[in-house]
Amino acid sequence: MTTFARIDRGEGRAAFARLDGDRLRLLTGAPWERPSETGEDVPFAGARLLAPVTPTKIVCVGRNYRAHAAELGNDVPAEPLLFFKPPSSIVAAGDGIELPEESSRVDHEAELGVVIGARCRRVSEERALDFVFGYTCVDDVTARDLQKKDGQWTRAKGFDTFCPTGPLLVTGIDPSALAVRCRVNGEIRQDGNTRDMIFSIAQLIAYISGVMTLEPGDLIATGTPHGVGPIAAGDVVEVEVDGVGTLRNPVRACG
Amino acid sequence: MTTFARIDRGEGRAAFARLDGDRLRLLTGAPWERPSETGEDVPFAGARLLAPVTPTKIVCVGRNYRAHAAELGNDVPAEPLLFFKPPSSIVAAGDGIELPEESSRVDHEAELGVVIGARCRRVSEERALDFVFGYTCVDDVTARDLQKKDGQWTRAKGFDTFCPTGPLLVTGIDPSALAVRCRVNGEIRQDGNTRDMIFSIAQLIAYISGVMTLEPGDLIATGTPHGVGPIAAGDVVEVEVDGVGTLRNPVRACG
Repeated sequence: MTTFARIDRGEGRAAFARLDGDRLRLLTGAPWERPSETGEDVPFAGARLLAPVTPTKIVCVGRNYRAHAAELGNDVPAEPLLFFKPPSSIVAAGDGIELPEESSRVDHEAELGVVIGARCRRVSEERALDFVFGYTCVDDVTARDLQKKDGQWTRAKGFDTFCPTGPLLVTGIDPSALAVRCRVNGEIRQDGNTRDMIFSIAQLIAYISGVMTLEPGDLIATGTPHGVGPIAAGDVVEVEVDGVGTLRNPVRACG
Repeated sequence: MTTFARIDRGEGRAAFARLDGDRLRLLTGAPWERPSETGEDVPFAGARLLAPVTPTKIVCVGRNYRAHAAELGNDVPAEPLLFFKPPSSIVAAGDGIELPEESSRVDHEAELGVVIGARCRRVSEERALDFVFGYTCVDDVTARDLQKKDGQWTRAKGFDTFCPTGPLLVTGIDPSALAVRCRVNGEIRQDGNTRDMIFSIAQLIAYISGVMTLEPGDLIATGTPHGVGPIAAGDVVEVEVDGVGTLRNPVRACG
């Protein structure tokens, strides 16, 4: 297991780094680009973490847990239900989730995020996990009222700050039975497990890559377990995936 | 009016260039980054053109022409209907549109493409056009059967090769009354005009930037006029926007 971070170096510069004890060893590029270490390191404790991903696209999966499909009154899909979040919606651990004025109901959705390691197109389910670089936590923040109103989920899922991601990127773990939890102000709201996914990570990668080329660094948000619910200004939302980390974000009124 | 291209320089290298007579003058960066000229130039005639855009996202607008909304049996939307195409769907003029096996009905959709010149968030309709860099042609290729079946349009609009874009990027034109046409094998199929858009380009930019930050280079596909219809392997599809260019792509069976 190796853990990576992406850190703010000031003046608009960012760098990926490998966690080594309590130090972050800086890298010459993104971890999935097989970078070298620069020789420079900084203390983990003082680092300002950025989202540990720079995807060309974020492919998300709707209704991938049976109990969550049921709680919103939906059938279990026969094929993965895909949608996109724009890269502009990504924020880091600690950044605020901003509630837009257009919505009166914004929900948390705790998810396991999968980061692609190598370009792939039409990969088989059997080979799919070979194209995974690592895992992170994602909060697929959703304006539930706009999701129902708009039909297409673009706006409801796409506001700036609606894709908290991180804090770290973890490789070399088995993703098949990880607890996925959400806490709001310390209280458990979602408590699922990736073993209850309707479509496994391998099945998702095979399906998605049958439609579109996945690029190194692309992010797949694998769906949320049951227990979604509203967040309000002043709340603190935590997405926790066992072995991957805890993603904590405060919630703010917009503007 | 200035015209830009992006060209293949071989060995995986690409460069933007400014068209000057019959020469392409190479640039040090993307046109919206205020690049310099490198001093090198190549003949336009021999250049292999790439899609003249490198967007972080492609924001598309559904049902933005009244007659097109009607032809598919849809109401005219009260707000812009947004969806995304992934950057992996972009191909250049001359590249093949590949018909996926999963669909038995793939349609052409001729559109004016708007390329953003500067980062913007929550811009007013009055200021919106200040953030436009230029214009290009887009074919919003759509698997019509999957669009109906899936609910979310991610797959139907997102296959590789489903976003032909180009051939050129044109600045300094008035986009408010441009003919937008599609020809299949030389026969006119769509013949609309941007003056018939339900939401103007300025209104679209104001609306979209009210949801998500638009980045320099981002592409907005502004919707298609009536006359959409199927394409088949062996067809040649042309999207023509007056003053912007003609985007020509052959259609191929997949794989």
